[in-house]
Amino acid sequence: MARDEFDLIARYLAPLASNAAARGLADDAAVFEVPAGYHGVVSTDALVSGVHFPAHATGDVVARRALGSALSDLAAMGATPTGCLLTWGIGPDWDESFFAEFAEAFGATLDTYNVDLWGGDTVRATTPFISVCVHGIGRKPDLLSRSGARAGEAVYVSGTIGDGFLGLQAFGTMTDADAVSAYAAPTPQLALGQALAGVASACIDVSDGLAADLDHICRASQIAMEIEAAAAPLSAAGVAYAQDTNFLAALLSGGDDYQLAFTVSAENAPKLEDIGRAAQVALTRIGTVTQSLEQSFSARFLAADGAEISFANRGYKHF
Amino acid sequence: MARDEFDLIARYLAPLASNAAARGLADDAAVFEVPAGYHGVVSTDALVSGVHFPAHATGDVVARRALGSALSDLAAMGATPTGCLLTWGIGPDWDESFFAEFAEAFGATLDTYNVDLWGGDTVRATTPFISVCVHGIGRKPDLLSRSGARAGEAVYVSGTIGDGFLGLQAFGTMTDADAVSAYAAPTPQLALGQALAGVASACIDVSDGLAADLDHICRASQIAMEIEAAAAPLSAAGVAYAQDTNFLAALLSGGDDYQLAFTVSAENAPKLEDIGRAAQVALTRIGTVTQSLEQSFSARFLAADGAEISFANRGYKHF
Repeated sequence: MARDEFDLIARYLAPLASNAAARGLADDAAVFEVPAGYHGVVSTDALVSGVHFPAHATGDVVARRALGSALSDLAAMGATPTGCLLTWGIGPDWDESFFAEFAEAFGATLDTYNVDLWGGDTVRATTPFISVCVHGIGRKPDLLSRSGARAGEAVYVSGTIGDGFLGLQAFGTMTDADAVSAYAAPTPQLALGQALAGVASACIDVSDGLAADLDHICRASQIAMEIEAAAAPLSAAGVAYAQDTNFLAALLSGGDDYQLAFTVSAENAPKLEDIGRAAQVALTRIGTVTQSLEQSFSARFLAADGAEISFANRGYKHF
Repeated sequence: MARDEFDLIARYLAPLASNAAARGLADDAAVFEVPAGYHGVVSTDALVSGVHFPAHATGDVVARRALGSALSDLAAMGATPTGCLLTWGIGPDWDESFFAEFAEAFGATLDTYNVDLWGGDTVRATTPFISVCVHGIGRKPDLLSRSGARAGEAVYVSGTIGDGFLGLQAFGTMTDADAVSAYAAPTPQLALGQALAGVASACIDVSDGLAADLDHICRASQIAMEIEAAAAPLSAAGVAYAQDTNFLAALLSGGDDYQLAFTVSAENAPKLEDIGRAAQVALTRIGTVTQSLEQSFSARFLAADGAEISFANRGYKHF
């Protein structure tokens, strides 16, 4: 006989929720603390089977992607994660081994980033979905935003760009372990985000695609950017893939990178060397913030010959 | 041409999110405050089309049920709501007029209960779903829980029981306006819950069904209850429906009432008269907390002849 909601929660989720905020998953709501001098920070991300992950994805991949992408939003704010709520929409053909795998990977990821499971909701659904609502705290007044970029500042990105895109391509065939891992187990840049709080003028995580995400900073800050496409840091797999400009554009707009893109003033730029070393991630200058012309708040990507690169899409369209 | 995610957000959600925490919906996360001396409280509820609301429900009904049921969880904790995140899973056959209606009713409900929209997520989905994550604050150390009931205390319920069940029955035919309204626009008992903080020993909102929800208090508090079924407060429609014991049992386990069920000590019971008057809701004593026998943590419902009423189901089974 199929387990009911309470059995599933007791077996797979309650063991992950032994913290005080979760109140044994026995109350109507979770109860948490925000210390004096800190803001609370909260973000929520939903992933639908067949839309945000392939229907054949294992519980392990779904757990790591759901939690990793949600924590990446806190990284972009410079916040420190504290707890999360997990909503599980369980489809008609659910399989207990999927949940066992999901719960094990979700618990391991919570441990890695020192996050508590506070509660959530488990419902019957026609198509499976997962929603993760992550909470964190950020010291006043240093939280990062998308709106602080100013003309003349430098634009940076962490790590390498395009591996999430290559990972999604490889995920179907499982041919390239590194690429699959970039897609299947994204690494939120939490330590980097926390170190950038009070240093960067604007920040975003690269989830939709670098071009689209830089555009988000441009709109929020009412500025524009000039990006040297050749300066974008690529992995060895990315370099091999980017044989022509169209393929490079695919990497620069493919999304799922979960790196941070940020702007920094000339005064603060010298601090980045120590910050990158401490966070163990490369920080690469890729361009410059400019005044917006004619209310066009967008990042122009320029090839080595100075021509503007055109994109079929600048990033993931949600629908 | 269909609007994309950003257009939908700009048109329907951004106008509801003019508060500071939402940061213009332009950042990766919302930023909120929890004042010194208060806990943060958070709960999340998902509703799936065809499971938690009829597929023909209008945007108005979905909005009021989604937000009302989520706020009811905060009422059960004695918390004061502050803000919420809204996740919208948009099905393939989406209809802009549905969202217009949804946004209008959601905004009106936010205003009624003085809650801000802080952010959320909008995704493409195979089957439509809504998830609402509500935040509140509660003064230390008075927050209510399910785990404080003690043998000898009285069991109370607010308002009337069974109208949500009758409303769901009537919702298909729209024959009884009061009943439809109880289902379509649940009223969270926020003022009552806040007044019960520090007074009631345990509290829950009646969402799954009175029998199942009292069982939740029994398990969390490691006690049992004896409930006089005839004492359960019914509306005129409920009295007419409860012509035989089986029909009464359906009302007592039907769910969707969003009243509060709570336990109170003899010392605190005299405070209830003023509390009910201030919250403008009837409070009815329906039974007594007892010691649990043989580890059976459950509420026994007794008919007038002392026989125990049996239930086909004690409440809504989530799957």
